[in-house]
Amino acid sequence: MNERMDDTYFMQVAIEEARLALEEDEVPVGAVLVKDNKIIARSHNSCEQLNDPTAHAEILAIREASRMLNNHRLIDTTLYVTLEPCPMCAGAIVWARIKELVYGALDPKSGACRSITNLVQHPALNHRVEIREGIFTRECARMLSGFFREKRSRQGG
Amino acid sequence: MNERMDDTYFMQVAIEEARLALEEDEVPVGAVLVKDNKIIARSHNSCEQLNDPTAHAEILAIREASRMLNNHRLIDTTLYVTLEPCPMCAGAIVWARIKELVYGALDPKSGACRSITNLVQHPALNHRVEIREGIFTRECARMLSGFFREKRSRQGG
Repeated sequence: MNERMDDTYFMQVAIEEARLALEEDEVPVGAVLVKDNKIIARSHNSCEQLNDPTAHAEILAIREASRMLNNHRLIDTTLYVTLEPCPMCAGAIVWARIKELVYGALDPKSGACRSITNLVQHPALNHRVEIREGIFTRECARMLSGFFREKRSRQGG
Repeated sequence: MNERMDDTYFMQVAIEEARLALEEDEVPVGAVLVKDNKIIARSHNSCEQLNDPTAHAEILAIREASRMLNNHRLIDTTLYVTLEPCPMCAGAIVWARIKELVYGALDPKSGACRSITNLVQHPALNHRVEIREGIFTRECARMLSGFFREKRSRQGG
């Protein structure tokens, strides 16, 4: 498989995870962690269910992969996530020494890889992450805007 | 008790937590979450033991308090932590809607409340945290510098 096919496949798995979040009435964000072309963790946002403000898809995937690899550094891994990571997740990505980050939709309100700041390539921090953007951007964004539109209409009704 | 006495007492508990981290050969950082003048969670950095890069003192305290309160928003709480929070923890503090943050030592390398950036009062994010600084600054910093000095000398020897 070439790199492009990998990105497409793994992002589709992340989108499947986001759909699971949607079914559970969670903000639909999914993440997949990949090492040596194999999925080592997959997860979706579960803040409401777990009563845990840190239970974003990325944090759950990082925690699962660290447990699995018995190592809190996830060297040579790629994280696929349907939404640009927030400051908390961007910070966790740096601490975990993740090599590459591939995200779908931009998050203009709290994205911390480009939108409001860039923490995964911050000059002061001791690790910098390679970023690939633009994969299934519209699909990922559509799922999120649909979720919030429905939520608003329920609250209004 | 006046506010100043509270700060002193709760920061001393956070320092006790940092000492527990030190005994476990973890980076000595401790945190205490307080609501209505009572401690609702206390924790210390446990990244090595838990094989979890997200297991900073602040994240563990937020997760514990959210479980305890059955709510992923920690309204009207104060977080005491011996070190200026990093980007990951600063992000989590904002998501948890923590009201006040009191920290001991500054972290010039990765502090995200003043040193390399200020995420807990970021104009783009939808919650801003009040900060109090300067409580047991030297004690907190001394514990950290001692830990890293000892670690370096062990590695060199």
